[in-house]
Amino acid sequence: MGKWLLPESLADILPAEARRIEELRRLLLDLYRTYGYEMVMPPLVEYLDSLLSGSTRHDLDLRTFKLVDQLSGRSLGVRADMTPQVTRIDAHLLNRSGVTRLSYCGSVLHTRPRGLFSTREPLQIGAEIYGHVGPQADIEVVQLALESVSRAGIIGARLDLGHPGVVRALLDDDPAAAPLAEDVFSLLRDKDVPGLERLVAALRPDTAAALLALPTLYGGREVIVQARAKLPALTRVAEALDALEAVALALPGVDAGIDLADVGGYGYHSGVMFAVYCDGWPDAVVRGGRYDDVGRAFGRARPATGFSLDLRVLAGLLPPPSIGRAVRAPWGQDAALASAVAALRAQGEIVVQALPGHDNDQQEFICDRELVLIDGTWQLTTLN
Amino acid sequence: MGKWLLPESLADILPAEARRIEELRRLLLDLYRTYGYEMVMPPLVEYLDSLLSGSTRHDLDLRTFKLVDQLSGRSLGVRADMTPQVTRIDAHLLNRSGVTRLSYCGSVLHTRPRGLFSTREPLQIGAEIYGHVGPQADIEVVQLALESVSRAGIIGARLDLGHPGVVRALLDDDPAAAPLAEDVFSLLRDKDVPGLERLVAALRPDTAAALLALPTLYGGREVIVQARAKLPALTRVAEALDALEAVALALPGVDAGIDLADVGGYGYHSGVMFAVYCDGWPDAVVRGGRYDDVGRAFGRARPATGFSLDLRVLAGLLPPPSIGRAVRAPWGQDAALASAVAALRAQGEIVVQALPGHDNDQQEFICDRELVLIDGTWQLTTLN
Repeated sequence: MGKWLLPESLADILPAEARRIEELRRLLLDLYRTYGYEMVMPPLVEYLDSLLSGSTRHDLDLRTFKLVDQLSGRSLGVRADMTPQVTRIDAHLLNRSGVTRLSYCGSVLHTRPRGLFSTREPLQIGAEIYGHVGPQADIEVVQLALESVSRAGIIGARLDLGHPGVVRALLDDDPAAAPLAEDVFSLLRDKDVPGLERLVAALRPDTAAALLALPTLYGGREVIVQARAKLPALTRVAEALDALEAVALALPGVDAGIDLADVGGYGYHSGVMFAVYCDGWPDAVVRGGRYDDVGRAFGRARPATGFSLDLRVLAGLLPPPSIGRAVRAPWGQDAALASAVAALRAQGEIVVQALPGHDNDQQEFICDRELVLIDGTWQLTTLN
Repeated sequence: MGKWLLPESLADILPAEARRIEELRRLLLDLYRTYGYEMVMPPLVEYLDSLLSGSTRHDLDLRTFKLVDQLSGRSLGVRADMTPQVTRIDAHLLNRSGVTRLSYCGSVLHTRPRGLFSTREPLQIGAEIYGHVGPQADIEVVQLALESVSRAGIIGARLDLGHPGVVRALLDDDPAAAPLAEDVFSLLRDKDVPGLERLVAALRPDTAAALLALPTLYGGREVIVQARAKLPALTRVAEALDALEAVALALPGVDAGIDLADVGGYGYHSGVMFAVYCDGWPDAVVRGGRYDDVGRAFGRARPATGFSLDLRVLAGLLPPPSIGRAVRAPWGQDAALASAVAALRAQGEIVVQALPGHDNDQQEFICDRELVLIDGTWQLTTLN
C-alpha cells in the first residue's frame, strides 16, 4: 500500500473545492456575526469526560477517537462534535448571566463514517444561543439555519421539526419501557417499524400503540393536531406539542414538516429539534435544536439552542466555483515590475510570476492578461 | 478535577482573540492567493508512515499523537505539521509537471508543547512552491513570509537565513561524526556550546573545529565571507554558502542575519532555511526553507520550498482588536422590523435582537445605536 493513500472516508480537499468551502465559511461566519453571534475556537482535543458531557447515548462515545495525554496520563478525546465544547465555554469561560450568542467552525473527527458517502472528518460550522428559554430563541436559530442554506445558494430546502420530549414522555410513563429507551431511539432513527413492533410487544398496550404511532405522525403542521388526538394526554407530551406549534406557527412562509419520530443527533436534545433537507443529499444538511441539559454537566445548566452543518456537504451541493482569472508576469528583481505587480495584487488581482524556465506551466488559474514591458513601462495586455 | 478544565497547554480561544485570528487568517490566505497560491485542505489524521515521511529526525514522531484506525487496524497519526501533507498532495493528487504554488491553514496537534509558553495546538498557515530548483523560488517565499508579518501589522521583523547543508557536509566528511548527527543538531538548536565541545572532542580535529565554529558564524551578510575562510573547503559547504548568498543579496532592503547554527524545524530541510523573529516572542514566528527530499518518500521527488507560521502566535503579538459596534433591535415578528433589520445586516452591520426579558444583557459588542419605531417607521437612533 502506497504511502500516499489516505485512510478510508478521509480525503484531501483540492484547490477548487477548498476555495468553495473557504468562501462558504466566510459567508456563514459573517452572516452569524451580523446577527450578533461571537466566534469561539475550542481545542481539537479535550479530556474525554468533558467532551462526552451531556450526551445520554453511546453514539458520541463510540464515534470519538481516544488518546492518552502524556502530560497528565488522562484520557483525551478528539472532538466528534463541537456543540458540547461551546456549551462548556458559555458555562465557564464567558460566565455571563444574560443571553450569549456564539458561533464556531472547525474540523471534527469520527472513528467510523456515519453513512456510505460520509466523511470521517466533517467541517462543522454552527451557531448557538445560551440563556433564553422561550420559543423566540428557537425561532431565531431555525431562521438562521434556513438563511445559512439559502445564502449558500441552495433553493428549495425543506425544514423538519421534531421534539424528543414526546418519545421520552411516553417511555418514562411505562416502567417497562425505560430500559428500552436506547433501542427505541435507534429503531426510530432507522425508521425500522417491524423492529419497533417486535420491541414494543412486551410493553403496556397504550405505550406500544403510542410508540408505533410516532412513525405515522409525519406531515405538515396538521400533524400536531393529529398527535394531540392520537397520543396519551400526558403533560409532557402536551408541552412538547405546544413548543413545536409555537415554532411552526412563527415560520409562516416556510415549507415545514413535522416528524415526531425524528430523534437524530447525539441525544442531548431536550426541546424543539429541527433538520434541514436539500435535494442531492440523503441525510439532513443542517441539524439543530434545544439542549437545556448539557450545561448541567459543567455545573451550570443554561437554556441552549442552536444548529450546525458540515461545510463539505454544503459545498458538495453547489455547482463548482468558477476558475480564477489571473495575470501572468515575468520573474525579475526590477523595481518598476515589482511595483506594478504589487499594485495589481493590492487590487485583489492574482498575479503569477513565472519562475525562470516555467513560462508555460499549467495553472489552476486562467491567465487572461499579461504584464509586458512596452516603451519602458509595465502594461497589462490581453491574452487569448 | 472539574470537567470544565482543559488539558495543559490547550486553550479555548474566546471571541476577541478568535476574531483577530479569523481576520489574520483571511488576510494571509487572500495575500497568498494574489501571488497565485492555491489553497488545499489535507485531513487531520493520516496513516502514520505517510505523516512522518521525509523527516530524518525523531522529533516529529515523538510529537505526533497516535491512533488506531478501526476501519483498517493500521496506525494513524494526528498531524503535527501540515507541510509533509501538502507535499504528498503536490506529488500525487495534483501531479503537475510544472511549478505548483499551494497554501493551507489548519490546526496541528503536538503531544508536548515546544516551550513554556507554547500551545500544543498551533494553528498553522503556510505557503509552498513545488517544482522549481532555482533561488528565485526561495526568494519569493522569503519575501512572502516577510510580507505576511508586515501585513499583519508587525513592524521591525528580523530575518535569519541558514542552510543545514553546511552542518551535514561537515558531518558526512568524518565517518566518526555521522552517528552523532542527531545529537549535534539538538545541541546546535539549544545553542549548547559546552555540550557541543564535549561531544566533538572524539572527532577529527578539523571536524571538531568546524562544528564549534558554527555557533560563532552569526551576524550580517559578512558571515558568508567569514564562513568561506573558517570552514573546510568542501564542495557541499561551498554550494550551501553560494545558495545562501544568492538569497541574501536578492533582499537588499531587508534586515537579514546569517545563522549557520540554526537547524530548527523537523529536519526535512535540504537547502536555504529561514526564520522570522519579532519583538515579544522568544522563538521564530515564521520558519521556512527548501526541502527537496520530502516528495521522494511519496515516490516523486520534487524541488520544494515554503514556510509556515502559527496564527495564534501572530495574533498574540498584535494589540487587541477593537470592540465591534452594533445596533440593538427589539424582538418581534413584525414584517417592517424584520426588513429594517435585514437591510442593516446586508450592509454588514451587527444587529442584535434582544430576546424577551433580556433587553439589558451584557454583550461583547458595544450597542451604540438602536432600531426604534418612530411615527410608524423603524429608525436608527444613537445610544450613549
